[in-house]
Amino acid sequence: MIVVTLGPAGTFSHELAVRLYGDDIELLPTIRSIIKRVAAGGAKGLVPIENSEAGGVGETLQGLLEFDVSITAEAYMPVRHHLAARGDPGRLSVIYAHPQTHEQCSVLLDRLGVEVVHTSSNAASAMAMQKDERSGAVISETAAAVYGLPVAERDVQNSEGNTTRFIEISALPRGSAGTTKCSLIVDPELDRVGLLADILAVFARRGINLTRIESRPSRRGMGRYLFFIDMETAEGWREAKEELKSMTTVRELGCYARMEVPGL
Amino acid sequence: MIVVTLGPAGTFSHELAVRLYGDDIELLPTIRSIIKRVAAGGAKGLVPIENSEAGGVGETLQGLLEFDVSITAEAYMPVRHHLAARGDPGRLSVIYAHPQTHEQCSVLLDRLGVEVVHTSSNAASAMAMQKDERSGAVISETAAAVYGLPVAERDVQNSEGNTTRFIEISALPRGSAGTTKCSLIVDPELDRVGLLADILAVFARRGINLTRIESRPSRRGMGRYLFFIDMETAEGWREAKEELKSMTTVRELGCYARMEVPGL
Repeated sequence: MIVVTLGPAGTFSHELAVRLYGDDIELLPTIRSIIKRVAAGGAKGLVPIENSEAGGVGETLQGLLEFDVSITAEAYMPVRHHLAARGDPGRLSVIYAHPQTHEQCSVLLDRLGVEVVHTSSNAASAMAMQKDERSGAVISETAAAVYGLPVAERDVQNSEGNTTRFIEISALPRGSAGTTKCSLIVDPELDRVGLLADILAVFARRGINLTRIESRPSRRGMGRYLFFIDMETAEGWREAKEELKSMTTVRELGCYARMEVPGL
Repeated sequence: MIVVTLGPAGTFSHELAVRLYGDDIELLPTIRSIIKRVAAGGAKGLVPIENSEAGGVGETLQGLLEFDVSITAEAYMPVRHHLAARGDPGRLSVIYAHPQTHEQCSVLLDRLGVEVVHTSSNAASAMAMQKDERSGAVISETAAAVYGLPVAERDVQNSEGNTTRFIEISALPRGSAGTTKCSLIVDPELDRVGLLADILAVFARRGINLTRIESRPSRRGMGRYLFFIDMETAEGWREAKEELKSMTTVRELGCYARMEVPGL
């Protein structure tokens, strides 16, 4: 089955998709368009969901809320950013960077003091630099190679452990055999004191580890939130899920396992 | 005291600062530079912390983690976006928009199908449109007025209730008299099953309402988080805070009240 991921050529998503799935890949320009395409059936998708420096990817969380897709696998990719420049990086007129890349490389960019212009992807940064002789760009190794740009400074990310977690999505859930993690969206609809504490206690009482909880706006007004919850599929997780459903509105995003990434 | 907020002229931050503080305002180009400036003393700051559609503002949360500042007040501002264009919006070559503005107006932008180019602020979108005859921009009323751009379509935000919450920050905390809310950063350092449930139970047992909880990367590696917690200063909140401090690492961001915004 074809895999849809974030283009243009040279994004981290593209690099990871090639490593995982080979050549049967289609590139789309936005995360929302990928998730929408997957929901329509006939394709799998690969999208970033969180980064260890910048946090959750809002477009992906929003897309999971809007479209009926399941998470079928996850994969982790170390993020290495490089500063592409044709001469002295301190003399550039502008540096192109995606907002999350900017956040992940803020130490270097603050030190250089060159104006940073935000772009819609790392590949877009590379393309913008191609057209502008006095500019630089913070991009991946793959993007530098694809667009033929010289790397002036390697590994400019703030943190050596910088990692992005990706999810594979599909119109249908995978079978539960061999899964290690399940993701849920909990919508408390009516807020009351202690509701989130009660929700979390359902898992704590059974010794089930929650690997992540992220609040997102419910879009029903300021101060009203939904929660994305990831849990390990330890003993008792099915009962925990059923108990939760009796308390509040729960949507199951799917259970899945981690994919190993060839060559990493 | 001078108030530092996000420029250039015409941002929502600028508009709110003028309404709240009059003319003694200085504009800086990034949220991080504002928070850094406030931490150095001698100025207050005004920065957005969350939006009812797009969620938490990562740069602000990260700045609060990095710099020693206190929250001294909050204010809510309804967000109205307008599509500026010199002719038929469907025939534009490109539309400039800040990434959060894009997310808040995604329904219109998806419908138009024109390429969206991300900018670093709503004012930057206006300035980019000024230089490019065939472009449009999604901007505020103030920005359209400041940069003399014609509005083709009014109120293009997805949701009528679209609101941004701002915080006033200072190098020193304010006194506790008359405060209605307190903000904390909880750093669980060592993760264990049920820790977050135990943290929330400290408040639930006392009937204290948590108005917001947001996880952020701890930057100690994937899967390790900090939590921003806002609570109402109801009876028992001081004891709750002390109990929490005996369980885990807590940083107090300050207690504060809501400012009314003149003219809104």
